[in-house]
Amino acid sequence: MMEFDKMLSAKTAEIEEILDRFLPKQEGLQQPVMETMKYSVKAGGKRIRPLLMQETFLMFSGEGEIICPFMAAMEFLHTYSLVHDDLPAMDNDEYRRGRKTTWKVYGEGMGVLCGDALLNYAYETAAGAFLQAQTKEAYENISHALRVFMHKAGIYGMIGGQVVDVLGDGKDIDSDTLDFVFKLKTGALLEASLMIGAILAGADEDAVRTLEDIGRNIGMAFQIQDDILDVVGNTDELGKQVHSDEKNHKTTYVTLYGLERARGDVKNYTQAAMDELMSLKEKKAPGGTEFFEEVLRMLVYRTK
Amino acid sequence: MMEFDKMLSAKTAEIEEILDRFLPKQEGLQQPVMETMKYSVKAGGKRIRPLLMQETFLMFSGEGEIICPFMAAMEFLHTYSLVHDDLPAMDNDEYRRGRKTTWKVYGEGMGVLCGDALLNYAYETAAGAFLQAQTKEAYENISHALRVFMHKAGIYGMIGGQVVDVLGDGKDIDSDTLDFVFKLKTGALLEASLMIGAILAGADEDAVRTLEDIGRNIGMAFQIQDDILDVVGNTDELGKQVHSDEKNHKTTYVTLYGLERARGDVKNYTQAAMDELMSLKEKKAPGGTEFFEEVLRMLVYRTK
Repeated sequence: MMEFDKMLSAKTAEIEEILDRFLPKQEGLQQPVMETMKYSVKAGGKRIRPLLMQETFLMFSGEGEIICPFMAAMEFLHTYSLVHDDLPAMDNDEYRRGRKTTWKVYGEGMGVLCGDALLNYAYETAAGAFLQAQTKEAYENISHALRVFMHKAGIYGMIGGQVVDVLGDGKDIDSDTLDFVFKLKTGALLEASLMIGAILAGADEDAVRTLEDIGRNIGMAFQIQDDILDVVGNTDELGKQVHSDEKNHKTTYVTLYGLERARGDVKNYTQAAMDELMSLKEKKAPGGTEFFEEVLRMLVYRTK
Repeated sequence: MMEFDKMLSAKTAEIEEILDRFLPKQEGLQQPVMETMKYSVKAGGKRIRPLLMQETFLMFSGEGEIICPFMAAMEFLHTYSLVHDDLPAMDNDEYRRGRKTTWKVYGEGMGVLCGDALLNYAYETAAGAFLQAQTKEAYENISHALRVFMHKAGIYGMIGGQVVDVLGDGKDIDSDTLDFVFKLKTGALLEASLMIGAILAGADEDAVRTLEDIGRNIGMAFQIQDDILDVVGNTDELGKQVHSDEKNHKTTYVTLYGLERARGDVKNYTQAAMDELMSLKEKKAPGGTEFFEEVLRMLVYRTK
């Protein structure tokens, strides 16, 4: 495990360096928006999505720098969703990871624009990968990765999940609706991260589809764990208020199914993902997956 | 002129049909966001940007359907910027073109998400053009068009202009700052529209650069005319309140330079654009530009 922690630190540090490299220069009359982008992106976070992306890229023997703009873009896009989620018109959160949220520091108008800027800049960054393309195959892979990214981030993915989540606020929702929100709001970007790494490495359609399924299972496990931590977690460790769901009378996996079933399902979804990963490894993936497996376990069985 | 009006009607009707075709189906639990998207996009508007895009595509003898997803995408993107501009945290507008604004109908949270959805879906739609690509050259053109689109919409384009505009609210701003806002907030998407049409038709770099310049000049003329109309226009005809700039103590081209100079500069910028268009036509563009020229004049010398 010490070995894993070391590798995780090294890889996370590398991702921070990539984020710094792709963040826009602080320049021009519009410099204030670049400042809000940096503040929001560098607010911490586990960098799970670029980490997963890099792992599937390596798993399919991807080489070179083509993955870097996509890794940065994924974190920028994830960050925009947090910046907008925190707005007074949405969750009205003043703190995230122990720091003031973007709108709380820079005002509500700049909070809206910062999120817009990060969303747009995410794609601008990812599309920069085309400048590295030499062959038709490279263009095909990059455009495929970009389309998956956009699809999973939009109304058929993350935004679709956010919408259903917002509309369900303060109401009792059923298990189908909760599943939908988990799958789209949380799962879609995890799916996209796993898929994009593989696509850019040239993996075949079948493998990409399996990774999508792994992402869905991990997303479910991750989000159920989130609901569990809101009940049993520790405010200091999490860096955010616990029992917020209860206070907001929010339907969660725990209120619907109870703590025991929730814990069991985290295990079940994780096991399903691991089984799929094993079968993929045996059939298709030339690269190693040991670190990758540990990341998935860490993701799910986290205490913060 | 009757002939022009007829052509304009026909072309605008064609654009409406393209928008309908590319708007997402009303389906799934997230259907409410699709409804807000449709409400916002179909709120009327002159469809100037897709119109300009189609004209430069034709001017360089572009053929086929490849332009359609980009035309729809440009209008979706423009619409997102209006939806977010209208939010209480931004301009706090309750009416646009005589109809309630999106947030006023669907609530503030949905206003944020609708804008996010349109921004994301704009790129998802444009990137759908890759599915039509057969050759490496087609991939190159589409990816180039996409990168121009993202650059001009983002922090180096429209969003950059919005940020400086928002930060200048209620303050006296200087002429450099006002120029910056005009060039980016209004000009950037007009530039992108002209450039993308030409890029997708396979025009060379030099021609694309000239079109960027034409877009900049037309954008300046358009925005100065907007400030003039806020002073001398008619509320009924415009479908929005006049004298709003005065009420908001906003620095405008008219407050900085006076009405006479403003009117002269509309002419000067328009003439510069027309001269560039003529030189482009003689040197490079095999297609006709008569209708295109009329569109530019209409754009600038409008009364609404």
